[in-house]
Amino acid sequence: MGSKRPDRRGFLKSGAALTGGLTLGAVAPAFGQTQTPASPPMIKEKADQIAYGARSKHVTSVRIPHGGRPSPDNFGLTFHVASPLQDSVGVITPSSLHYYATTRGSFLPDIDPREHTLMIHGLVDRPLTFSMADLKRFPSVTRLHFIECAGNRSTPRAKTVQESHGMTSCAEWTGVLLSTLLKEAGVKGSASWFVAEGKEEVKGASSMPLAKAMDDVLVAYGMNGEAVRPQNGFPLRLMVPGFEGIFHTKWLQRIKLVDRYYMNYSDYGHLRDDKVDAALGYQWGPKSVITFPSGSQQLPGRGFYEISGLAWSGGGAIRRVEISTDNGKSWKNAEFKGTPQRMAHTRFGLPWNWDGTETVILSRCTDELGQVQPTRAQAAKHFNQPADPSFSVPGLDNTIQPWRIASDGSVTNGFA
Amino acid sequence: MGSKRPDRRGFLKSGAALTGGLTLGAVAPAFGQTQTPASPPMIKEKADQIAYGARSKHVTSVRIPHGGRPSPDNFGLTFHVASPLQDSVGVITPSSLHYYATTRGSFLPDIDPREHTLMIHGLVDRPLTFSMADLKRFPSVTRLHFIECAGNRSTPRAKTVQESHGMTSCAEWTGVLLSTLLKEAGVKGSASWFVAEGKEEVKGASSMPLAKAMDDVLVAYGMNGEAVRPQNGFPLRLMVPGFEGIFHTKWLQRIKLVDRYYMNYSDYGHLRDDKVDAALGYQWGPKSVITFPSGSQQLPGRGFYEISGLAWSGGGAIRRVEISTDNGKSWKNAEFKGTPQRMAHTRFGLPWNWDGTETVILSRCTDELGQVQPTRAQAAKHFNQPADPSFSVPGLDNTIQPWRIASDGSVTNGFA
Repeated sequence: MGSKRPDRRGFLKSGAALTGGLTLGAVAPAFGQTQTPASPPMIKEKADQIAYGARSKHVTSVRIPHGGRPSPDNFGLTFHVASPLQDSVGVITPSSLHYYATTRGSFLPDIDPREHTLMIHGLVDRPLTFSMADLKRFPSVTRLHFIECAGNRSTPRAKTVQESHGMTSCAEWTGVLLSTLLKEAGVKGSASWFVAEGKEEVKGASSMPLAKAMDDVLVAYGMNGEAVRPQNGFPLRLMVPGFEGIFHTKWLQRIKLVDRYYMNYSDYGHLRDDKVDAALGYQWGPKSVITFPSGSQQLPGRGFYEISGLAWSGGGAIRRVEISTDNGKSWKNAEFKGTPQRMAHTRFGLPWNWDGTETVILSRCTDELGQVQPTRAQAAKHFNQPADPSFSVPGLDNTIQPWRIASDGSVTNGFA
Repeated sequence: MGSKRPDRRGFLKSGAALTGGLTLGAVAPAFGQTQTPASPPMIKEKADQIAYGARSKHVTSVRIPHGGRPSPDNFGLTFHVASPLQDSVGVITPSSLHYYATTRGSFLPDIDPREHTLMIHGLVDRPLTFSMADLKRFPSVTRLHFIECAGNRSTPRAKTVQESHGMTSCAEWTGVLLSTLLKEAGVKGSASWFVAEGKEEVKGASSMPLAKAMDDVLVAYGMNGEAVRPQNGFPLRLMVPGFEGIFHTKWLQRIKLVDRYYMNYSDYGHLRDDKVDAALGYQWGPKSVITFPSGSQQLPGRGFYEISGLAWSGGGAIRRVEISTDNGKSWKNAEFKGTPQRMAHTRFGLPWNWDGTETVILSRCTDELGQVQPTRAQAAKHFNQPADPSFSVPGLDNTIQPWRIASDGSVTNGFA
């Protein structure tokens, strides 16, 4: 990485490489054209690895307890584990690195799928229970969706993007539309909300609007091409696209249709007088973050880089991502790495030639509803609070994350 | 699964459930509405599982040696491991279950990514070597692509879809376009082909056309959101979208631009006199297979099922999948589960009400070039061979796979 890097904007604009001068790769040694490099050491695979493989021992990216606290036992009843976004590529979060949160510390329900059932009852014509085999006989859907914990927020203390934004992930989910199951059960005209219950002692979120159930809520048994992982609700979880994480009930066992707004035990955060106001607060606004370069990373020197990051919204697909490399004075449109999906992470990139001077980089996204990601100062003003480091956005924080690049290439949280 | 299933076509057409009569779920027991089910046993998570999770112990789907042979040591120099397509959902193959093939039995190169380099040389203006860190500084692309081994073919002996079709998988790949690197090196006018070399003792495939390199070939370091797995070429592999598997060089270390068609040691199958004919034989035609119901699966009884499967083509995106449930007498269009991507698996489904009589089910796809998947009988006629069980399609076999459903619900290979 110590090689000198010239201005490569010409190349990127023209589609042709620099002629003459220094390039990114070092000139290949002459031996390479006439001799075969020595063979590397070999690993003899074990039978269990042939059956179901593992990553390289050289890849050490891991989840960490949210907030950087070292031990799961510090968390008491709740436990939050953040995904290493600084190492992410593309939009799929590997299931082994998908963020998760529980209400029972580091204990997970141990469920035999042959015995697991989903009950649908309350204001329906025919209360029904479904085995896992029953559910897999229904017409299936497969969709890319993010999930994000309501507590996923940047603070001046967050040193890395894993600490500031790691409580969101994105996977390919497969299952049955809840609307399909509700049509089987027959929805009574008096039903207006529904509650979902997982196999945890501390039960899940409060009510969700029936209109959401009939739109795009998914009862998911598949995740990234295999069964949902235990940490994400094996064998069954609710997907409520765009809503904050707590609604995506894991180890799903019951759905009840009701005629009013219900509160549940663990539902801190939705204790509002007005039910419409409460329901509106469920959905994530447009949000984006730069994952490279991000906090605690180190640029080896001035020259060419691709700024890379993720954008998503509870309001649908991402329509635009803009990047500023001068702390908001000017903005450029980033490129999407693939077609943005609704309520899914979208990978973006922007070629950048860093001149070696200190600066702050930002990303800002717009979703299909036209909603624009706000700055933290705008949020503070909206909530009539001072925009100092003590300010924490009430509810869902989708504000712009600044990363400061020092002249030595070190990257730190712009709020710090 | 023993519950009776009525004809649900009315429901599926109208979007409303059956009124009265039997439904898929059993009627919920009364306790469910008033009592909370007992809490399940809990698992205390270990630190390594919190850091990087694993699947449930109840999920036992595994790869198997291709052809069903029990031991990797039977294979001598080559080793092929097939993915369990019968258990697949969606289009992502989990990296732990992605098919792979090597030329060194069950031995894999053990590569330290800090020491790994890619050399580009031959007919270029500036031979270059790139470290992994260098490669990650270039503009990246992320694309969903299948890979498929040339030997992925059905036979009368294949009992399951894993045995008949498991040598294909699909993942989200991230890396640098080879064209970007070649522009850095500068392509000489005399270059017309390129060869790629991986870190195996037995080297890779023969030449590929330079036009393909400049179009969509990818030098991939990312797979399903993390580093490429060792079995799939960690830390670097070539992706040659739509071409047969052997060209997707794993443990990639050298690319050489040349002015003629080159042969390489392990390149059985491309020893043809005419270079154009040889190159045309690289690309997979349109291919599809039903993964449920498929060989060795068991339908529990007549009634409603969703027929589900995968379709793909080396010629671009899938435009249409048709399914026959009467051994080819009539065909219905299947539904896509998401937007088909170019040179990627596409998941399809069709609602089906099985009346309990013996039948044969088929799938047939058409790609964006208008190419239609052929039957095995058509292929036999094309190659002037008898269409009996001894016939094996020369080259790449993309013929239609029949599955026979017996009146007891058992599913077997229609060729058997």
